Amino acid sequence: MQPLEFYQIEFEKYLKQCLLFPDPKNLYDPIAYILNLGGKRIRPMLTLLTAEVFGASYNSALPAAMAIEVFHNFSLVHDDIMDDAPLRRGNETVHEKWNINTGILSGDAMLILAYRYFESYDPSKFKELLFLFSKTALQVCEGQQYDIDFETRDDVVIPEYLKMIEYKTAVLVATAMKMGAIIADTTDENACLIYDFGLNLGIAFQLQDDYLDAFGNPATFGKQVGGDIIENKKTYLYLKAIEFAKEDEKVQLLHLFSIQPSDNKDKIESVKAIFNKTKASEATQQAIQEYTFKAFETLEKVTISNDKKRILRKFGENLMNRKV
Amino acid sequence: MQPLEFYQIEFEKYLKQCLLFPDPKNLYDPIAYILNLGGKRIRPMLTLLTAEVFGASYNSALPAAMAIEVFHNFSLVHDDIMDDAPLRRGNETVHEKWNINTGILSGDAMLILAYRYFESYDPSKFKELLFLFSKTALQVCEGQQYDIDFETRDDVVIPEYLKMIEYKTAVLVATAMKMGAIIADTTDENACLIYDFGLNLGIAFQLQDDYLDAFGNPATFGKQVGGDIIENKKTYLYLKAIEFAKEDEKVQLLHLFSIQPSDNKDKIESVKAIFNKTKASEATQQAIQEYTFKAFETLEKVTISNDKKRILRKFGENLMNRKV
Repeated sequence: MQPLEFYQIEFEKYLKQCLLFPDPKNLYDPIAYILNLGGKRIRPMLTLLTAEVFGASYNSALPAAMAIEVFHNFSLVHDDIMDDAPLRRGNETVHEKWNINTGILSGDAMLILAYRYFESYDPSKFKELLFLFSKTALQVCEGQQYDIDFETRDDVVIPEYLKMIEYKTAVLVATAMKMGAIIADTTDENACLIYDFGLNLGIAFQLQDDYLDAFGNPATFGKQVGGDIIENKKTYLYLKAIEFAKEDEKVQLLHLFSIQPSDNKDKIESVKAIFNKTKASEATQQAIQEYTFKAFETLEKVTISNDKKRILRKFGENLMNRKV
Repeated sequence: MQPLEFYQIEFEKYLKQCLLFPDPKNLYDPIAYILNLGGKRIRPMLTLLTAEVFGASYNSALPAAMAIEVFHNFSLVHDDIMDDAPLRRGNETVHEKWNINTGILSGDAMLILAYRYFESYDPSKFKELLFLFSKTALQVCEGQQYDIDFETRDDVVIPEYLKMIEYKTAVLVATAMKMGAIIADTTDENACLIYDFGLNLGIAFQLQDDYLDAFGNPATFGKQVGGDIIENKKTYLYLKAIEFAKEDEKVQLLHLFSIQPSDNKDKIESVKAIFNKTKASEATQQAIQEYTFKAFETLEKVTISNDKKRILRKFGENLMNRKV
């Protein structure tokens, strides 16, 4: 095993090689653009790392890692159109730099390309990987649909929210890891355990995203702090606050989530005060810890050496201690 | 072998069974809607028919036929957004009935679903079918991109146009047939020949679409006659007219293709007159015949009984004699 950065560097090298596209330029340039914007490459790194943890060379997992990263970026391109987002990773989104039609069509091509990266695996592994990939890809679409549906619903409950973030975010993290396990030919049990590890870590990761969106340090948090509050997003923090709020706090929160002031400073501060007063922020941090703990507990059951468990645990800890 | 209608009826029955979707409704209802709008089901019928021609039961080809039809409908949903089309098969398009975001996301789910229908095939066949499917799907995206690019180019030449319709339309017809051949385990040579048969038939089909769009009978042609002329589309008819036109005709045609009058009647008639005078309409009909002939010539080389050749030839003739 190599230090974590090694896998990131190797993945970036491999990705660069994959970015030589044929014509038509207007279809493939946006694909190269979004894939070149960087990002943390968490998912492909997890695929490479998991393959090595189960005894395969990371080399054999590079095509699957690429597929996962291209799929992830496909979902960003289409989600950014749906959310009307102008920026991604500090740069113009694809539909902003080109136009909506280009965003749709290049996104479609990326989804197909993601499937194609698996073609280097032998038929039996190819089918096993694609079965998992398609199931997950469909869940990601379902998660996005639930997220859209929630915008216009006022009766969303915590279990529904957790299912939404599980589908929209966590299953892809889990799948990234399970693919490494499948490529390394480990036991089905190990593959399922590592999927659960990734799933719980993915949920914790998204809950932390919710938390940092409100309480992150503006100096280090990549996005605009308070963005979810401005958009009246029903995050875990919000749903817990509604659950815990006294009648007057609830009325105040519902009011704050019904307005769109031109200057959001006061709104953000008032909402955060309610998140704190109702102990919704505490409950969110607790949930993050619980899901992280559940992930690490699952990791213990995997039949690999303690050294290797330590590496995956370290990756999880880094992820959860991030401030961005 | 059964009469042609039999395969259509069996496909419709199978499709109906496939339309039982889980939640979320807002993701899957639009998918059931577009697939229920009917259409000629040419591609899935060709898959079933080709499987039987090469000695397999049509039953074994139903999942692949379904995949092809769902992919075709995915491309219609996304193309209709890009073209801002209000109607499809006489009904509201998905993005018109719901909204653009629903059109994008339900389309994405359809593309993934198309891949999933192949999961019933054994790993070796699964990989062979998916390899062909992904390659084709990407070509369809490239064809759509060329089509978009051509809108703002004034130097498109006939070979480029032919490549565009080959990618956007013909490769999927060819693939529908080759899948039937793969499922029936025929020789590679037969599979390639039947692909070429489908490819040439597909090009002829699209050229005829161009022709009927201008010269079809308004009483029997499904779409608005003259639609391409109204939209200043650079079809085969137009490109041939530009090629054959005398200087004054060329100036007139370029002018007509630069205006957007509120009443298009005069424009349509003037353009059609030029298509006739320059013999572009004649050249288009000749090209349709040449590609059809090429298809039938290729069919002769396939090692199947003459009876079976006659069935495929009949299908091709029906397709080319359509007035809609």
